Amino acid sequence: MQSGGQQVGKASIQFKEGPRIIGAASVVGQKEGEGPLGSFFDVIEPDPMLGCDNWEEAESALQKEAADLAIEHSGIVRNQIRYLFAGDLLGQLIATSFGTVDLEIPLFGLYGACSTMGEALCLGAMAVDAGYADYVMSMASSHFASAEKQFRFPLEYGNQRPLSTTWTVTGCGSFVLGKKGGNVRVAGITPGKIVDMGLKDSMNMGACMAPAASDTICRHLEDFGRRPEEYDKIITGDLGEVGHTILVDFMKSNGYDINSLHMDCGMEIFDNESQDTHSGGSGCGCSAVVLAGYILPKLQSGEWKRVLFVPTGALLSSTSYNEGQSVPGIAHGVVLEHC
Amino acid sequence: MQSGGQQVGKASIQFKEGPRIIGAASVVGQKEGEGPLGSFFDVIEPDPMLGCDNWEEAESALQKEAADLAIEHSGIVRNQIRYLFAGDLLGQLIATSFGTVDLEIPLFGLYGACSTMGEALCLGAMAVDAGYADYVMSMASSHFASAEKQFRFPLEYGNQRPLSTTWTVTGCGSFVLGKKGGNVRVAGITPGKIVDMGLKDSMNMGACMAPAASDTICRHLEDFGRRPEEYDKIITGDLGEVGHTILVDFMKSNGYDINSLHMDCGMEIFDNESQDTHSGGSGCGCSAVVLAGYILPKLQSGEWKRVLFVPTGALLSSTSYNEGQSVPGIAHGVVLEHC
Repeated sequence: MQSGGQQVGKASIQFKEGPRIIGAASVVGQKEGEGPLGSFFDVIEPDPMLGCDNWEEAESALQKEAADLAIEHSGIVRNQIRYLFAGDLLGQLIATSFGTVDLEIPLFGLYGACSTMGEALCLGAMAVDAGYADYVMSMASSHFASAEKQFRFPLEYGNQRPLSTTWTVTGCGSFVLGKKGGNVRVAGITPGKIVDMGLKDSMNMGACMAPAASDTICRHLEDFGRRPEEYDKIITGDLGEVGHTILVDFMKSNGYDINSLHMDCGMEIFDNESQDTHSGGSGCGCSAVVLAGYILPKLQSGEWKRVLFVPTGALLSSTSYNEGQSVPGIAHGVVLEHC
Repeated sequence: MQSGGQQVGKASIQFKEGPRIIGAASVVGQKEGEGPLGSFFDVIEPDPMLGCDNWEEAESALQKEAADLAIEHSGIVRNQIRYLFAGDLLGQLIATSFGTVDLEIPLFGLYGACSTMGEALCLGAMAVDAGYADYVMSMASSHFASAEKQFRFPLEYGNQRPLSTTWTVTGCGSFVLGKKGGNVRVAGITPGKIVDMGLKDSMNMGACMAPAASDTICRHLEDFGRRPEEYDKIITGDLGEVGHTILVDFMKSNGYDINSLHMDCGMEIFDNESQDTHSGGSGCGCSAVVLAGYILPKLQSGEWKRVLFVPTGALLSSTSYNEGQSVPGIAHGVVLEHC
């Protein structure tokens, strides 16, 4: 079986034909629906519990809904999907385990914090490109309330949040990848390394993740021998206002000016003025739904020809934080092209 | 670039040449060192803290040590390893994040509960076989004390444990896979589906995981058109005594007699009589270190020609358990052959 993909540079893969994104879906919560991108999402769920008994089950319900809709949009049937690459932010990935059990598709459970959508697309594209699967699904979710409970404070406590914090997106983005179909392809990937600058402020995750984003973007440009201008956009996941500034500075010190090319999903999804979301949106659902709802259609229409999608993750847990550990970052790069 | 792998059956992949395991290492704790397999492990760490300040950092130290040793055994240098596929049991994979940061290798973080070693070998083998990497590392760890803290009770509480419980292995197994070298190959894989029989007893994980093991083994045999007798051993991860009985019964009801072929890493690693470990060992470190220390040498010597390695995972968190959710299982199958 012919694999079109080949190693490029130190750590990237360039696909020859490139697996296509043949179906996608975005399901979000009320607040995301009221944000600047609200009209682009497939489904806005007005009930944050989605009719479930707790936040974790609600997040699982987001996954079920997004998966079913992505399959519907792709025009194939569920059992044609050979493998599922999925994850979420919760300990032991319980949103994914209970959200995907009914799909009955062999699962590779992934954890890359908020970079998980990038990780899932990398591995899904590798599987399809190599001929290991005709169709795969890549998916990631987050839920504001399950994440607050997992990482921060009980919602009932009503704590104040520093301006550097981000607001976890309630949402799930799901993608069906196949050898043929559609007009957007995964043209290459640059998987991310963990980058630990020793920062310890979990309320400023943008600063913790920006060095990892810079590392991945620089390595990507070197591996592919490209300049930033060869992309219509370089799109990070959830750096927010604070992380954006740091990323642009880091890139500048590496000889790249990406200020006008940089877009951050977390900065697009909410309007801080009216929605009080501080530095922006975050969570693996953030980049996932912005990709499905906003970025992908621009690639499909040809308005954008090529983007570098770089979801960013902050690798911490409440345990590591309480034990005084730093907050390392990771970012996975995915080249998406109109074709 | 030529990929030798191809889809077989509904959900499996058969590799043509098959990525080779060119280096492996096992690092375990004192109790594992005192068990029946003690003499087979590379390193026995007498200090459960490994000189660190807490259990989580100790588990990270296990990963560092196992990774360095596997690289040494493989005869290559660290920066030849293109991708790392690794995971552990802790929320947000903190043992892996802090254990692998110094390797500076692009990381795919994985969570499959105690099946993670299988998941990491599947994805690592796929990457090498497709030509995406010349060398990758697959690794998984667990630590008795970090796992008790995460899933059960504080150690200081000294709770009594039902006889169906397993004892989480303190250990890390690490493997370097490459296109050539060594005489053991990954000949095929059957990734696992989540199987939820509605069981809710987190103190009886063997029973929760056995149906998933049975599902994967049956699908594997169907996909490859084989009988159990074509394997020298069918080796599950950590079903323990209770899960072993259930698996053998389930397989029998599917027309397969695997009683004499079945081996369970969790049943091998401890001696319940003298070590009071009840149903057996568990944790993703369990199957990882038994593979590295005990199974792999038997394949290298040719005593075993072909085994099916099926690490088993119980997909729960303390949150899902406390919210009354069931404990679904998952198991990933990996065919290992002497060549």
